Amino acid sequence: MEQKSRQKNIDLGTETIKKITNYIKSNRLSVGDKLPNEQELMDDLNVGRSTIREAMHVLEYSGIVDIRQGSGTYVKGFKIIDENNPILWKTKKMLEKEAITELIDQDIQPNDWLILKSYLTRRNQLLNQGKFKGFIESDILFHTKIIKMSGNPYLIKWYQELSPLWKSRLNQLIVKKEHYSGKSDYHNQLFDALVDRNLHKALKMIKLVGR
Amino acid sequence: MEQKSRQKNIDLGTETIKKITNYIKSNRLSVGDKLPNEQELMDDLNVGRSTIREAMHVLEYSGIVDIRQGSGTYVKGFKIIDENNPILWKTKKMLEKEAITELIDQDIQPNDWLILKSYLTRRNQLLNQGKFKGFIESDILFHTKIIKMSGNPYLIKWYQELSPLWKSRLNQLIVKKEHYSGKSDYHNQLFDALVDRNLHKALKMIKLVGR
Repeated sequence: MEQKSRQKNIDLGTETIKKITNYIKSNRLSVGDKLPNEQELMDDLNVGRSTIREAMHVLEYSGIVDIRQGSGTYVKGFKIIDENNPILWKTKKMLEKEAITELIDQDIQPNDWLILKSYLTRRNQLLNQGKFKGFIESDILFHTKIIKMSGNPYLIKWYQELSPLWKSRLNQLIVKKEHYSGKSDYHNQLFDALVDRNLHKALKMIKLVGR
Repeated sequence: MEQKSRQKNIDLGTETIKKITNYIKSNRLSVGDKLPNEQELMDDLNVGRSTIREAMHVLEYSGIVDIRQGSGTYVKGFKIIDENNPILWKTKKMLEKEAITELIDQDIQPNDWLILKSYLTRRNQLLNQGKFKGFIESDILFHTKIIKMSGNPYLIKWYQELSPLWKSRLNQLIVKKEHYSGKSDYHNQLFDALVDRNLHKALKMIKLVGR
């Protein structure tokens, strides 16, 4: 039952996103055109304010709308810019694989595990609540913390260079996927594998958490 | 016989480097002290000018001497700064492995193979002549070209960030190794494996060419 209510929140969020993109298409809005305000969208789509706001954040990071403080929300583009960037994914996975391989041999302080766990818990909770903005931020914190725990300064620097692209890509995934799951279970298993220093399982999970 | 004469040139160069570091030690030179000029070193060590110059370049990039144009050569440090940096090697290998894996699937232009081959030939020739400065430059060009042929802009950017460290590390290896070989044979086999699109062999050679 609890599982169902979680998926319901995620679905409500992603459905709202789709309704807004459909609104842009069916009303043939052009770049620069203003979208209805929050209240109008709430009434139209029959959802709460926070759902509209989360959807708008995802659409903003996907390059579809432009939120101007105190003015309103405007159409910025119709298409997701980076339709498919396999190089970004490959490169991110390469850094993660190397970081995990190096982390397994590191002497990790208990506090680092606690921090990592707190990012994971927050990530999963926010996803379950359909709070995509905070979810994506915690997800990036979780993955970046793993890279930091490798102690390899090159991996840390380069992973942070990828983060803005990665953030935009995550938002795009939420817009595009029919049923976005967020793969919390695989993330939990990745955490357990790291704590257990189970390299084989951790590398398997890294393959599964992406995309 | 030819093989012997090659190793002789390399040995002459590395012996000269060792004689200069021994000179610094046995004469208890301090940081900032001036070394004998080229002519004096040529007479002392009984080698030609170009051998002295190649040796000084290697010592300069290793952080041991400071060559000041028009003034002379001075002691900068006694110890090789970066005694052992496994993280640098690991990270460089990670980028090379990924680049080769991606290159295998790329549509490579004949001209790119020609350029890669020319760097390889030059690298091996200069090494055989004991011309370490040019050898190291060509070696880096060869490896960087492989990364470029992957077409992955992240790998290209990051590999170039490692190049200065890699250059200094190569110079240090020449100073430290009893018999520096340069592993031309493995480099030739790496080139052949890439042309044959033999991923397994290419990855094996990448392991062997380093360190």
